[in-house]
Amino acid sequence: MAISKTRALAGVFADEARHLGKSARTRARLMDAAVGVFARDGFEAASVNEIARAADVANGTFYLHFKDKDAIATEVALRIAGDVARRLDAAMVDLDDAIERTSRATRQFLEIACGQPEWGWALLRAMWSLPSLRKQMASYLRADLKRGVRQGAFTVKVDDLLIEVFTAMAASALLARLNGEAGAEAGSKVAELQLRMLGVPAKRAAATAWRPLAPEALPG
Amino acid sequence: MAISKTRALAGVFADEARHLGKSARTRARLMDAAVGVFARDGFEAASVNEIARAADVANGTFYLHFKDKDAIATEVALRIAGDVARRLDAAMVDLDDAIERTSRATRQFLEIACGQPEWGWALLRAMWSLPSLRKQMASYLRADLKRGVRQGAFTVKVDDLLIEVFTAMAASALLARLNGEAGAEAGSKVAELQLRMLGVPAKRAAATAWRPLAPEALPG
Repeated sequence: MAISKTRALAGVFADEARHLGKSARTRARLMDAAVGVFARDGFEAASVNEIARAADVANGTFYLHFKDKDAIATEVALRIAGDVARRLDAAMVDLDDAIERTSRATRQFLEIACGQPEWGWALLRAMWSLPSLRKQMASYLRADLKRGVRQGAFTVKVDDLLIEVFTAMAASALLARLNGEAGAEAGSKVAELQLRMLGVPAKRAAATAWRPLAPEALPG
Repeated sequence: MAISKTRALAGVFADEARHLGKSARTRARLMDAAVGVFARDGFEAASVNEIARAADVANGTFYLHFKDKDAIATEVALRIAGDVARRLDAAMVDLDDAIERTSRATRQFLEIACGQPEWGWALLRAMWSLPSLRKQMASYLRADLKRGVRQGAFTVKVDDLLIEVFTAMAASALLARLNGEAGAEAGSKVAELQLRMLGVPAKRAAATAWRPLAPEALPG
C-alpha cells in the first residue's frame, strides 16, 4: 500500500501546476521531488541538496521557493492533507448518515497516513505547528458534525474546541501507530471513542467503528 | 494567579536537592533559574547565557548539566508535570468517585498550566516530544480510569491507546487556551467530552464537568 500511495502522489503537484507560470511549475516540481526524497530517504536523512537534484534545479533555486527542508515538508503535508480530505469527501458523496461518515473519515485518514509513514509524520508535525492545516481539515469535519446534529445522532455543540478535540484524538492514534505502540485496530478504537463522545449509544458506536471498511471506499 | 504559581515554584528544585551533592545542587539551581528566566523573558527569548547568569554559574557549567535550552526546558516540564500530578492526586485522597476525580484532574491541570503560560507551552512541547512524560502522567490517570471501570461508571477498555487519546484531548484544550482560541470554559468542555467518551451519561457528564471547582481543591 505504501508504494502504490506514493506512486499515486508522484508528479501530482507538477500536474496541477502545468498551466501555471514558470515559477509555479518549478515550485511544484520541487514539491514532487520532496515527496520522492522523503519517501526514499526518510525526513531526517533527506537534504535540500537531494531535493534540488531530484527536481533538476540548482540549490539556489530551492531557496527562492522555500526557506528550508521543514518549510517544504510543511507545504507538502498541507497540500496532501487537503487532497486526501477532498478525496475522502468525494468518496462519501452518496453517504448521508453522519455516524458512518464520521467513523469512515477517521479510519480512512489513519489508513492513508500510516500507509505512508513519512507523510504521516510530516502531517503530525504540520498539524502541531500549523493552525491553518487544522482549520483546513476542520472544514470537512465541521460539516459532518453539523450533519450529525441535524440528524439527531450527535448531541454536542459543534464549536472550534470540539473540532480541535476531535482532531487531536485522531492525531494521537496516528502517533501511536507511527510509534509502533498501536496496530491497525487503532482506527476503529479511536472512531468508537469519538462516536461515544458525540453522543452515539455505545452499541451503535462499536458496531459502526468495527465494521470492515469496504476496500473500494479507500481512495488510492 | 500566574504570579503566585510562579512564586510557588521558585526555588523548588534547589529545595528538593538541598541534601544532595554539589553537582545535583548546581543542576537544581540551574533548573530554578530556568523557571524564572522563561517566566520573565518567554521561552523563545530566553538564552542559556541568561539562565547561567541567573543561577550564578559560568556558561560552561550549564553545558556540563544540559545539552541546550530545549533540554533544560524539557527536564523542568517533566518535573513540574510530575509534581502537579502528585499534588492533584494528594488533594483528592478522600475522593472515591472516579467520575469526579477524572473531571477534576483535567480541569485543574488546565487551570495550573494556563495560569503559567510559559510552563503550559513547555509542557505541551514536552508532551509532544517525550513519551516518558506522557507515561508519567498516565500512571495517575490509568488508576482513575480503572477505578471508574470497577465502580461501573466507565464502560471502556483501559489500555494505552485510551490513555493517549484522553491525554491528547486535554492537551488540545490546553493548546486552544494558550493560543487564545478558547477561554476558561475549555476545561469544563473537554472534561465533559472525556466523561461522555468514557460512558458517563450525558446529563451526569455535564453536571460534573460544569460544577464550580472548590478553590481549596486547587493546589498552589
